[in-house]
This record gives sequence, C-alpha cells and structure tokens, in this order.
Amino acid sequence: MCDTCGCQTNNQNSDTRLIDINKSLLEANNAIASKNREHIEKMGAVAINLISSPGAGKTTLLEKTADMATNLFHFCVIEGDIETERDAERIRAKGIPAIQLTTGGACHLDAPLVHKGLHKLEDEISTTPFQILFIENVGNLVCPAAFDLGEHKRVVMVSVPEGSDKPAKYPRAFLGSDLFLITKIDLLDYFDFSIEEATECAKRINPKIRVMSVSAKTGQGMDKWIAYLQNLID
Amino acid sequence: MCDTCGCQTNNQNSDTRLIDINKSLLEANNAIASKNREHIEKMGAVAINLISSPGAGKTTLLEKTADMATNLFHFCVIEGDIETERDAERIRAKGIPAIQLTTGGACHLDAPLVHKGLHKLEDEISTTPFQILFIENVGNLVCPAAFDLGEHKRVVMVSVPEGSDKPAKYPRAFLGSDLFLITKIDLLDYFDFSIEEATECAKRINPKIRVMSVSAKTGQGMDKWIAYLQNLID
Repeated sequence: MCDTCGCQTNNQNSDTRLIDINKSLLEANNAIASKNREHIEKMGAVAINLISSPGAGKTTLLEKTADMATNLFHFCVIEGDIETERDAERIRAKGIPAIQLTTGGACHLDAPLVHKGLHKLEDEISTTPFQILFIENVGNLVCPAAFDLGEHKRVVMVSVPEGSDKPAKYPRAFLGSDLFLITKIDLLDYFDFSIEEATECAKRINPKIRVMSVSAKTGQGMDKWIAYLQNLID
Repeated sequence: MCDTCGCQTNNQNSDTRLIDINKSLLEANNAIASKNREHIEKMGAVAINLISSPGAGKTTLLEKTADMATNLFHFCVIEGDIETERDAERIRAKGIPAIQLTTGGACHLDAPLVHKGLHKLEDEISTTPFQILFIENVGNLVCPAAFDLGEHKRVVMVSVPEGSDKPAKYPRAFLGSDLFLITKIDLLDYFDFSIEEATECAKRINPKIRVMSVSAKTGQGMDKWIAYLQNLID
C-alpha cells in the first residue's frame, strides 16, 4: 500500500497505522462500489469505467460513440475531473445526458463520489431509459486502477502518441481491466508504436484482457467497439 | 488532503487521523527534500523535476538534450518509473549516466526515494562532474505535483496530442512549476491544439510560469530549451 496514495502494495515509508486506515478505506470503497453496482443494475444499465492518461481520447471516444449509437442503445455519462465542467459540456452537446463530478484535487474517482453521481443523475436528468452508463475517470493511468467504482466492465485506453511501452510501465491498470483500447490509430504512421508489442505486453500482465484498436477521428475499428457495447446489453 | 493520496485538499472521506498522518508525511517529505537540495548543490549541480502524463516525451526530450548538450554541459538522470528499467537504458544509450528508481506501484517519486537515488548515483556511477541532474518523475500529471523532491526547478510538460485544455484540468501541476514545456509541436497540424489557449490558461493559474514549445523530433524550439538550461548553471 502506498502510504500517500493507497494505490499499490510497496512503499518506502510504510506506517502500520496508515496501512490499517488505507485498508479500511479501500474496504469501505469496495462496499459502496458493490452498492453502486446494484443501483446501476436497478436502473437497467451496465457501467463501464474508462481509465487512461490525460488526453488519450476518452471524451472523444464517447462523442463518436454518441454519433454511432443512435438507434442502437441509449447511454449516459458520469464525467470525473479534478476541475472544470468541459467534458460534460462536450458530451451534452451530442445530446447525451451527462453529469460532471469534480474531485477538487483528488487524483481518481472513488465509489462514494460515484454514488453521489448516481443520485445526481437521477435527480437532475429527466431521461429516457438508458442501457449503458459510462464513468469517465480522472485522467491518470495509476491511481484510478486501485478503486472499484461499481462498474461492470473496466476499459483501459492508451493512445498511439503515448507509446507501446505503457502496459509494461503501468501494469496495474491492465491487470484489472477487461478491455484494452488502443486509440488514435490514425496516427500510427507518425509514431513508433507497435500494436503487437502493446498487445503482447498487456496479455502477459492479464491473459484475459481483450484488445481493440480504434480511431475515433476516422472511425476505423469503431464498429468492433460498438459491437462490444451492444454485446454487453444483449 | 486526499485521504487516499495526500495529493490535494478536498476529499469525500476525510478522516482526522489520516489527515494528521498525511500532513506529517508531507512535512517529513519536505524536510528530506531540503536535504536533497543541499546534497545536489554539494555535487555542484542543479536539479530539475520533470512532470507529465505518460508518453508526453520526457525521455525523448532528454535524449535530444543529450545530443545537443555535448560541449555545453554534463548531466545525469534519475529515472522514476513504477516498473521497468527501460527509460534509464534509453538514456545510457546516449552516453548519459542514469539510474533507475522503480516505485513498486507508487504513483509518484518522493524525497526519501530520491535521497536513495542520490547515493546510488554516487556509489554506482563513476562520472565526470555534472552541472544538471534531471529527475524524470513517474508519468502522472496529478500526484507528483504534491511532492517536493529537492529540485531547484520544476518543469511540467504537455504534448500536443493531449490537448490544450490540460492546464485547466490539472492546475496543481502548473501552480508549482517554473516552466511549462509544450512538446511534440511537430504534430500541431494534426491536432486541435492551441498554444495560445494553453499558455493563457497556465498563466492564469501561475502568472510566473514560463512557457516554451518544442519538438524533440524536429529540433524546433530546442535551442531555447538548451539556453534555459545553460542559464541555470551560469
């Protein structure tokens, strides 16, 4: 357990009291996450927790998903950011109900905050029934990996400009994810990014992880992403 | 204070005991950071803490700096990563002394770990005197911002593919930095990135921050970066 972040197991400054508190906080988080999952299921939806570095294209993926999902399924978005309402505004501009959670500095969403988000979603948004709830986490490839939010599927995204060494360098995010989405593949010609290397490495960490590659800009690979989502709700 | 990360002030699950422990940990970190600064000055060097998201180009910047710094100054690198020795190997391939610190899961470097790194640097590397020590932090635009490592200057980097909204979304990293380096500007034609927007926003957060833009690939703007470094050691 990192004594300043609670995000992993090893640390230089271990302190028994702190480990106990962090452990109990994670346990409390997980208990609320389970409640969130039930809550979301009662709404008739499945939840997807999107994790990536800043700028990997989480919001852009959701904008393109909105364009393609018309007549296929309805979805809502809980946007997590440290500051600003920008991402929720981008999603709303696509006609998709979205609420913004700002963490006020914290580096990840946690289950209690998402619990508030679920009530905000119910209270503030008069919407048609939806089948998918996307939870767009704070842009951070490290800390969000430690926190169950109550999602049914976790998707970790790495964009081509970030480099194919990212699974090896940030293994925890891949260990806990169901799908590894390689984004911005329209840029493969401009970067030394190997889909094969990234895939092999992610599968060494987590043999069960699925891997897809997409460009939300050109639409390449987006049909498989949409099929993945449809399969979750069928 | 985030009760799971210690990285900021607001949180949903505040716990007085945890705040006390986190406060004392940050104070302990800062005391060791001050010692690190003295240690580095006795080595005859100034230290620069590089902070960015994964894949913003920290290691590539240092590789290009190595190419351009010949005959100008000597530098060493402390590489911080959660896992792998890759970045140190890339730097050593350029003939630059580099040691790798792996955090074993933690999302940021802290002063005690860098203290160990300084001794490792002295013990393991027989080197000519150096004037600059780069500390390449873990790829994370959030948590590293809270931890003084003993650096003299802090440089925050955002690459063009990440988007010009990043200062607004991750203000803490800009509040504590001396220089904002916009990287991968050879990609400006492919992305909707506004240097003006990013600059204005960073300066609203921190009016004293300097802003430079570079491409380590084409070399554009690198002369100003090298001049900035030379100015630190003159």
